[in-house]
Amino acid sequence: MTVTTPLSPDRQALAITMGDPCGIGPEIIVKAFAQDPQATRGAFVVGDVGVMRRTVHALNVASRWPVIELENAAEALSVPPRCIPVLQVIPAMSVLPWGQMCAEAGKAAGDCVLWAVRAALKAEVSAVVTAPLHKEALSAAGPPYDRYPGHTELLQAEAAEFIQKPVAEVPVRMMLANQELRTVLVSIHVSLRQAIEAVTLPNVMETIVITHEALLATLGRPPRIAVAGLNPHAGEGGLFGREEIDIISPAVALARAQGVNVQGPMAPDTVFMRARRTSAHEGEFDVVIAMYHDQGLIPVKYRGVEHGVNVTLGLPLVRTSPDHGTAFDIAGQGIADASSMLEAIRMARALVAHRAC
Amino acid sequence: MTVTTPLSPDRQALAITMGDPCGIGPEIIVKAFAQDPQATRGAFVVGDVGVMRRTVHALNVASRWPVIELENAAEALSVPPRCIPVLQVIPAMSVLPWGQMCAEAGKAAGDCVLWAVRAALKAEVSAVVTAPLHKEALSAAGPPYDRYPGHTELLQAEAAEFIQKPVAEVPVRMMLANQELRTVLVSIHVSLRQAIEAVTLPNVMETIVITHEALLATLGRPPRIAVAGLNPHAGEGGLFGREEIDIISPAVALARAQGVNVQGPMAPDTVFMRARRTSAHEGEFDVVIAMYHDQGLIPVKYRGVEHGVNVTLGLPLVRTSPDHGTAFDIAGQGIADASSMLEAIRMARALVAHRAC
Repeated sequence: MTVTTPLSPDRQALAITMGDPCGIGPEIIVKAFAQDPQATRGAFVVGDVGVMRRTVHALNVASRWPVIELENAAEALSVPPRCIPVLQVIPAMSVLPWGQMCAEAGKAAGDCVLWAVRAALKAEVSAVVTAPLHKEALSAAGPPYDRYPGHTELLQAEAAEFIQKPVAEVPVRMMLANQELRTVLVSIHVSLRQAIEAVTLPNVMETIVITHEALLATLGRPPRIAVAGLNPHAGEGGLFGREEIDIISPAVALARAQGVNVQGPMAPDTVFMRARRTSAHEGEFDVVIAMYHDQGLIPVKYRGVEHGVNVTLGLPLVRTSPDHGTAFDIAGQGIADASSMLEAIRMARALVAHRAC
Repeated sequence: MTVTTPLSPDRQALAITMGDPCGIGPEIIVKAFAQDPQATRGAFVVGDVGVMRRTVHALNVASRWPVIELENAAEALSVPPRCIPVLQVIPAMSVLPWGQMCAEAGKAAGDCVLWAVRAALKAEVSAVVTAPLHKEALSAAGPPYDRYPGHTELLQAEAAEFIQKPVAEVPVRMMLANQELRTVLVSIHVSLRQAIEAVTLPNVMETIVITHEALLATLGRPPRIAVAGLNPHAGEGGLFGREEIDIISPAVALARAQGVNVQGPMAPDTVFMRARRTSAHEGEFDVVIAMYHDQGLIPVKYRGVEHGVNVTLGLPLVRTSPDHGTAFDIAGQGIADASSMLEAIRMARALVAHRAC
C-alpha cells in the first residue's frame, strides 16, 4: 500500500525502534533513511548510537549517511538532510555478534519499545514503527519482557496501564496489509482448534468494530468490510459446519444494524481474491476479516512478504511494523530488503495524517 | 500451468463431458475448440448434439465451427479441422432454458460423465475432462446420481467397481493447479472441525504417496513435495498445537524413509509463497500438501480462478476439470471465460503423454 507522504509539517517526530540489534533491524532502518528521505523526514531511531554507527559502517554508507545523536525526540524534526538521527534511550551497548540470540540484545530491544510506546502514549512522538524483535532474546531478557510473546502484548499492557483499564478491556487486533490486500485477524497465535473456539459472537463483533473504526480513520470514509466464513464455502448452508449460521451471520447482522458497511460470511477461498486490488481490478472490499491466523496470512504473504505491513488496531497510538522477523541468518550481510520497513513508515505517517484530519 | 501439447499422434480420443447443459459448460467447450485447435485436436464432446448446435448458434460461430455428430469415439481422431465433434451418448434432449436448475439437465450431465468414465476405464478414450455439473440438478436426477455430491465421488465409485475393490480402497485426492502453484488437499468438503479430525497419520501418509505417484508420472521425476502444518507457524514447537509433532512429522518421516522427496511440516503462511513459480522465482517445491480445503484453495484462487485446473489423483484414469462451477448467472450470454477449460484439456493431454512415456 504505497501511500503519499503527507506534505504538511509534522508536529511530532516519528519513533522507529531499533529492534533486536543482532538482527536485520538496524540495517533496514539505515536503508529506509537512505532509500526514501521524504518518507523518513522527521523520523528518528530509538536505539543505540553505537549499533547504528556500526551498521552504517558495515553498509559503507557512513560518509553519506552519518549517524547523529539527538538530545531529545523533538530535535528529529530539524536534523540536517542525509543524517540518521538516533536518540540514545538505553545505556551504550557492547559490541554483539550479528545473528545470535542474546539476552542483552533482547533487553535493549525491549527497552527501546517501552520508551517509544510511552512516548507515543504521552503524545511526545507521533507514532511508533517497530523493527523486528527476537522472541527468545526478549524472553531471555527477563522481567518485564519474559511476560510478552511479542510487541503486541507489550504495547497492549502499556496502553492499558496508561488509560488505567484492565488489559482485557483494551482489545487489539492485528491487521496485515500490502499493496493488494488488508486483513484483520480474529485470533493470532493459538492452535487451529483454539482458533475455532475463539470464533465467538463477541470476538467477531469486536473485530468488525475495531476494523471499522481504524479504517474509517485511515480511509476517511466507512470501509467496505468482508467477513470470511470459518468453514469451506462458508459452511454451505450448515452442511460443512454451523459457525457461520450460529455466530458469524448474527455478528454481521448486529454490526450492520449499527451502520457498519460489512458483508458476510463469505466463502474463504474466494473472498481474498475478490478483495484484491490491482491495476486491473479495484477490489470489492477494503478489508477482509479472517477467522484465524493462516486464513488471513496465506493470501497476504502469497505474493511475497517484501511489502507487508503489520498494523496494531485498537490501541490509543499508531503502531506499525514490517511483516517479517529478525532474519538472523542474513543479519550483518548487507542484503536485507528494507521495502517492508519503508512501507511500515509510510503507513504510520498516513495513519497519523488521517488522525490529525 | 501452460503445458506443451504433445505432437505425437494420439492413440485414443480425449473425452470432454458437456457438463450441465443449462450452465456455461457447452459454451466454454465451444470456445476451447475455437481458441486452441491444437490443444483440442483429437478431443470430442460427450453430450447432446442439439445442445452443442444451439450453443454454436448462440455464439454466432455455427458457420465457422460446425458441430458434427460422431459414430464412435475413435472418429474424433480424424474429424476435419474446425469442427466440433460430438458423440451422442444420451437420448436427444429437449430445449432447456439457460441458467435454471432442472433434473433433466442433471441426469444428462450425469449420464455423460458415467459414459466417459467407463470409456476411460476400458481405455477407449485417453482421458476425461469434465465441464461443470450443478450439484442440485445432479441430485434432482435421482438414482444413481443423488448418491454423489459431485464428480469425484461418482468417478471413485465407478473406478472401484471396475477394479473390483471397495470404494474405501480407492482413495482419491483433489489437486488444484494453476500456472504458479499445485496443491493437494488432505480433506475437502467437511467442516474445519472435521478437517482437523481428518489430519491422521494414514490420511496424511496416503496424501503424500498419492501426490508422489501422480506427479512422478506428470513431471517424469520425483516431485519436491512440501507438507504444510495445520497450526500457525506449524505449531511453533508444540506451543500452538501438537498435530505437527504427533501426526504430520511422523508421516513425513515415514514417507522419506520410503524414498519420497518430501519436507515438512512447514509454516502454512509462507509455504505457498515459497512454492510459487513465477518468471522471477522458480519455486522451492513442485506441490504443497494442504491440511484442509481453504489452506490450499485460498492461495490457488488468490490470483484469479481463470486458469485453475482440478485434477483427481489416485484414480486409474486421467481426469481433469476447470476450477469453477456452472455459473448459471451468466449462462447463455456468451461471456464465459474458457481459459480454465483449456488449461484442463492441456493438463489432461500432458498427463496422458507422461503416462505413455
